[in-house]
Amino acid sequence: MTERVSSVDVHDIRFPTSRDRDGSDAMNPFPDYSAAYIVLRTTAGAEGHGLVFTVGRGTEIQVAAVRSLASMVLGQPVAELVADPGALARRLVGDSQIRWLGPEKGVVHMAAGGLVNAVWDLAARRAGKPLWKHLADLSPEQLVAQIDFRYLRDALTEDEALDLVTRAADGRAERERLLRAEGYPAYTTTPGWLGYDDEKLARLCVEAVESGFELIKLKVGGDLADDVRRMDIARRAVGPKIGIAVDANQVWGVPDAIAWMRELRAFNPYWIEEPTSPDDVLGHAAIRAALAPIRVATGEHTHNAVMFKQLLQAGAVDVVQIDACRVGGVNENLAILLLAAKFGVPVCPHAGGVGLCEMVRHLAMFDFVAVSGSLDNRYIEYVDHLHEHFVDPVRVQRGRYLAPTAPGMSAELHPASRDAYRFPDGPEWADGQR
Amino acid sequence: MTERVSSVDVHDIRFPTSRDRDGSDAMNPFPDYSAAYIVLRTTAGAEGHGLVFTVGRGTEIQVAAVRSLASMVLGQPVAELVADPGALARRLVGDSQIRWLGPEKGVVHMAAGGLVNAVWDLAARRAGKPLWKHLADLSPEQLVAQIDFRYLRDALTEDEALDLVTRAADGRAERERLLRAEGYPAYTTTPGWLGYDDEKLARLCVEAVESGFELIKLKVGGDLADDVRRMDIARRAVGPKIGIAVDANQVWGVPDAIAWMRELRAFNPYWIEEPTSPDDVLGHAAIRAALAPIRVATGEHTHNAVMFKQLLQAGAVDVVQIDACRVGGVNENLAILLLAAKFGVPVCPHAGGVGLCEMVRHLAMFDFVAVSGSLDNRYIEYVDHLHEHFVDPVRVQRGRYLAPTAPGMSAELHPASRDAYRFPDGPEWADGQR
Repeated sequence: MTERVSSVDVHDIRFPTSRDRDGSDAMNPFPDYSAAYIVLRTTAGAEGHGLVFTVGRGTEIQVAAVRSLASMVLGQPVAELVADPGALARRLVGDSQIRWLGPEKGVVHMAAGGLVNAVWDLAARRAGKPLWKHLADLSPEQLVAQIDFRYLRDALTEDEALDLVTRAADGRAERERLLRAEGYPAYTTTPGWLGYDDEKLARLCVEAVESGFELIKLKVGGDLADDVRRMDIARRAVGPKIGIAVDANQVWGVPDAIAWMRELRAFNPYWIEEPTSPDDVLGHAAIRAALAPIRVATGEHTHNAVMFKQLLQAGAVDVVQIDACRVGGVNENLAILLLAAKFGVPVCPHAGGVGLCEMVRHLAMFDFVAVSGSLDNRYIEYVDHLHEHFVDPVRVQRGRYLAPTAPGMSAELHPASRDAYRFPDGPEWADGQR
Repeated sequence: MTERVSSVDVHDIRFPTSRDRDGSDAMNPFPDYSAAYIVLRTTAGAEGHGLVFTVGRGTEIQVAAVRSLASMVLGQPVAELVADPGALARRLVGDSQIRWLGPEKGVVHMAAGGLVNAVWDLAARRAGKPLWKHLADLSPEQLVAQIDFRYLRDALTEDEALDLVTRAADGRAERERLLRAEGYPAYTTTPGWLGYDDEKLARLCVEAVESGFELIKLKVGGDLADDVRRMDIARRAVGPKIGIAVDANQVWGVPDAIAWMRELRAFNPYWIEEPTSPDDVLGHAAIRAALAPIRVATGEHTHNAVMFKQLLQAGAVDVVQIDACRVGGVNENLAILLLAAKFGVPVCPHAGGVGLCEMVRHLAMFDFVAVSGSLDNRYIEYVDHLHEHFVDPVRVQRGRYLAPTAPGMSAELHPASRDAYRFPDGPEWADGQR
């Protein structure tokens, strides 16, 4: 009998992170890191796990969206799904009625991405490989066929993509060996949350350097005098050689971003992240031109490949920050990795949150092995929260992500965590603290 | 006792328009025109009505989003809400947790817009004026205070906006008189749906001209030979003087759009609408440069003012097509009208669907009276479907929208229609045809 998808369960999971102001920034003072968590099961008892990261209120909307789209996955033959997740991605993203609610953005697009990722998880498990390796083992033709080029051809054609991936075959085995031996560079955001006091900031900065990180990140944009003081503290703590990226989380308009960052220039910031609206391609280009050589980074809220395409076409970014959950899943992230490679811009994935580190490391490692072939100026974000809830958590040693070896995409939460943090009726919430 | 918002009811309303292929285009072959319909009631028995237009599947997601955001409206003092809907708009759009699901785009942004519009409806009813007049009677300072300039100042500052509105005071009374006497120009999309056969197309084209329309619109992008044949039929039917706009509903990439439209150039299209992804600002600019003097139009899927800002900054559009439901409500549309006026680009609102004609006429008429002061190259879209369900339906005579006189924003559906088309349990759906 044909194996089919027999159930798609979607759970509202919330961690009460706002109680300690972990994750606090200028735009998100009190986030409760959360997820619309997806478990897809097959008639043969196999599972695929996916999630859409959220920050508290509104997770119920994301859950509703995944449930609505799940009808397009339920009952599907598993062999076809895992052989070609791109076909599912096209159906989910292209549904002619649901498309009105995006298109290709926001709640419905992230819902599609969560389901597509759950299918990739299932596919990698069946292949017995971690996702990065499963992707790297696809042929150039298979990889390129997984991408929807409809709106991308003015920047990247199928032929160019195929050429890019084919050329990257050179040195692949050596890069895979290197990756397994030495891991992938990480940077840490742990010291820099806006809600932390100066003593905690200084202490965490020193600990970050001692742990082997070469790049740390501070949140900025709340108050200029505070930012100057905190940058000074951080710079003194880490010394002149460690990079300090700063992140404004979209609080500024274009003129504010330029003026504010000029005041922080003396501390040699490595990049300014999300200086303004994530939708403002031309604004990022203007900010980059005004602030060079400070790098401009964005991407965690960049809602699809068309936006990344324009950021690259306009010369608006020095750093492409893909996110495992924002876009329409692995397939759209493949397109973004290829676009970045075509334009020669390094990818430094956004992570943290719930499971973002676990998932996105696969994409960065795949990129190193099979697309860009480079680690130069490339770092995966690392935040040391909530990993204990994952079955296949990240391992970071001496400032580097070790390559995962367990089959799948690593989104699976421990059943005990799913139960404890279920909203609103799990024991962590039913105590009335919400 | 202070009057407060006592309830916010949200209904899933769907019209089975796909049965006759009304509304069919290259991207939406079978839409069921629908709405997340909002009724806000106060402790004094007053009502405000709003809606978010959708096209069928997924309306339940939009309903869930409005219900989640409604908690920020419930219990609010009515006098404060109606005196400053902009404050509510900022709270809804800026919520630090829900914002993650956008930001300012898709399902959560449209939900905010629907609630903001319901408050404007309530405000205009209390003022005893149709919304266009209520807005036109605000002082320049009050108007400008309704706009969030955070991400707009590189294109339009508060001072420039104030100057723009203040200068438009000249001739206002005469324009209001003209509007009441002669109405506002309309164009019609009724002839051009992709699902109509050639005979119906020709007949409806002739009827449109006889009814006094100077501009009609055809859907294109399904099949090139069909489009050439249909444009030929339409051009013969309407003669050389009537404008024929064409609308591709995003089916093309940038190179396809240019190549396809070159084949239709001989029929002198008035504009090409949605030639590619609504997110592709640079793509629209490239298409416009390649196809001039054919105008480029977009906006019904342009998800916020930051995107409109860039379309204008990049010289990407000749026509700005605001939509009553896509962005964060009246307040964000005020920003878009001011941006368009600053850049000297005419606004031709998107309408049709469910209640879009009813609502958006208020914004266009306000723009004529109090912002742009012009009717040149300006037309509101008109589609003659579903108006019978509205309490204050549009009236179009000799190709012009008459100015509405009933207080409010005109989103109110007849109670009988709400009952009949309620999904999935209303009698129009419970018959098993879905």
